[in-house]
Amino acid sequence: MRILSGIQPSGIIHIGNYFGMIKKMIESQDDGELFAFIASYHALTTVKEKEVLEKNIFEVAVNFLALGMDPEKSTFWVQHHVKEVLELYWLLSNHTSMGLLERAHSYKDKVARGFQTNHGLFSYPVLMAADILVYDSNIVPVGKDQIQHVEMTRDIANSFNNHYKTDILVLPEAKVDEVVATVPGTDGAKMSKSYGNTIDMFGDAKTIKKQVMGVVTDSKGLDDVKDPTTCNIYKLSELFMNEEELAELRQRYATPGEGYGHFKMTLLDKINEHFEPYAQRRQELLNNPKEVHEILAFGAEKAGKIAKAKMEKIRDIVGL
Amino acid sequence: MRILSGIQPSGIIHIGNYFGMIKKMIESQDDGELFAFIASYHALTTVKEKEVLEKNIFEVAVNFLALGMDPEKSTFWVQHHVKEVLELYWLLSNHTSMGLLERAHSYKDKVARGFQTNHGLFSYPVLMAADILVYDSNIVPVGKDQIQHVEMTRDIANSFNNHYKTDILVLPEAKVDEVVATVPGTDGAKMSKSYGNTIDMFGDAKTIKKQVMGVVTDSKGLDDVKDPTTCNIYKLSELFMNEEELAELRQRYATPGEGYGHFKMTLLDKINEHFEPYAQRRQELLNNPKEVHEILAFGAEKAGKIAKAKMEKIRDIVGL
Repeated sequence: MRILSGIQPSGIIHIGNYFGMIKKMIESQDDGELFAFIASYHALTTVKEKEVLEKNIFEVAVNFLALGMDPEKSTFWVQHHVKEVLELYWLLSNHTSMGLLERAHSYKDKVARGFQTNHGLFSYPVLMAADILVYDSNIVPVGKDQIQHVEMTRDIANSFNNHYKTDILVLPEAKVDEVVATVPGTDGAKMSKSYGNTIDMFGDAKTIKKQVMGVVTDSKGLDDVKDPTTCNIYKLSELFMNEEELAELRQRYATPGEGYGHFKMTLLDKINEHFEPYAQRRQELLNNPKEVHEILAFGAEKAGKIAKAKMEKIRDIVGL
Repeated sequence: MRILSGIQPSGIIHIGNYFGMIKKMIESQDDGELFAFIASYHALTTVKEKEVLEKNIFEVAVNFLALGMDPEKSTFWVQHHVKEVLELYWLLSNHTSMGLLERAHSYKDKVARGFQTNHGLFSYPVLMAADILVYDSNIVPVGKDQIQHVEMTRDIANSFNNHYKTDILVLPEAKVDEVVATVPGTDGAKMSKSYGNTIDMFGDAKTIKKQVMGVVTDSKGLDDVKDPTTCNIYKLSELFMNEEELAELRQRYATPGEGYGHFKMTLLDKINEHFEPYAQRRQELLNNPKEVHEILAFGAEKAGKIAKAKMEKIRDIVGL
């Protein structure tokens, strides 16, 4: 069973990304054959500065490797290192009705929000279909907003298969995790870069401290008994503590004498403790870009072998 | 000065294709550095049968080589043998506004005529832009209906250049031949496969004879004096005869005793005589597909070298 995951290259990651998506992707390495790529071509639809794109691609690679992406067990590469995907993209384009693309929620949403729409954004779902299909992916873990794109992939694949009377393209299944941990941001809303309420994972110590100390609480003082069930600090602590530690923390909420500042310091320590081994590995990789590039080249070779073999068959079917 | 010409792979060519386009393309080998490719990716927007596509690509290659395409002097290849063009296509997509594509006449025309539109047809002008730009083409000879596509290429290139503050993409010029010989079909309308009024170039002798004998004339008989200026046979003869021969033919029109059948036989002889050396070379190539494939591979190598070098520079600019 092959699992395909695309990773948007984004330089800074926060604990919302980690618990919402990254951790699951890393763990999925035990569920099947994970194919994970850094979506550099897709990123071009929004990232249009050379330095930003280069930096983001490198850093997201480093982050995922540090967090446990295993390049031997899984296949981990940068999208544009395997160019076959663009050929399938073009072939699929000729079996993708305009109506299908015009109905894509994410595109309609961007139009509605007044984005300057370009052809890359519009045709994004076809490229995504090519990503999925060129690797014979069986499972595509997605958020709810991406289910439609996997359905479109199935439609396009069906249309191609039917036309050429073949079953060359494997229909993927979307896997939507129903129990996504919604990680609260420092203001209690869902943690998201666009809300400015994140706690960064690998930021400098000062920034992270400032973010944790900025978690919004009620105004109870040192001598008040506090309610963990409505407290953002406690909710965040749940991500990093075991049951025993949480019982102890609840005890401190119930006992006058400590304020939210103390609980925040405890949370900060736990966060640092949790990510310290990853941060260390990350620093090693940052200091050794050659190693990172070699790992990515190795992944591209593995992915490329499969994509090349697949495209040879597909080309033969269409007559190229 | 580099001239780029795309060739639609179409199995059977007629003398309208020849005098309208092919002859000029062959002659343009003396005007500059001709880059001519068989547009296999573009063909997929309409040709969706493996055998037809394969046959058409091979036969169009044979036809052009037989008619004087010089693979040493020019660069002559099949589009899909140089895959870099698809990468530029994707990069350009992100700098192509949807409005630009929606305004394309050829697409609007297809929609209006009730074609089942797909994404390949819609995005055709972006792929054409990539074809032109990846080879630093200066001149693109086009029919009037294609001028807009070259203008779109300039728009897209400008948009990319401006965004990245570069002049990496060379703006092409459309070259419209104002004195296009409109070759009349057997019914007097413009010769076109879709009108079913063609005279094939390399068809079997029987077919060509039938087509020539089917040229529509008025109903004057053997003993009538006939008017060459309104006669389709004469108009077609003009393509194959020199002034002396034409004078002689006019004399025959003015002299009772011969009918249109005689003039048609004269035309048929001239056509056969004109294309005989080409037909011979064509037969040699048909008998030797290996040679044809080697010539095309040689062309792809020449074109590929340029496209690869260009894409390396462009990738560096966008940060891939």
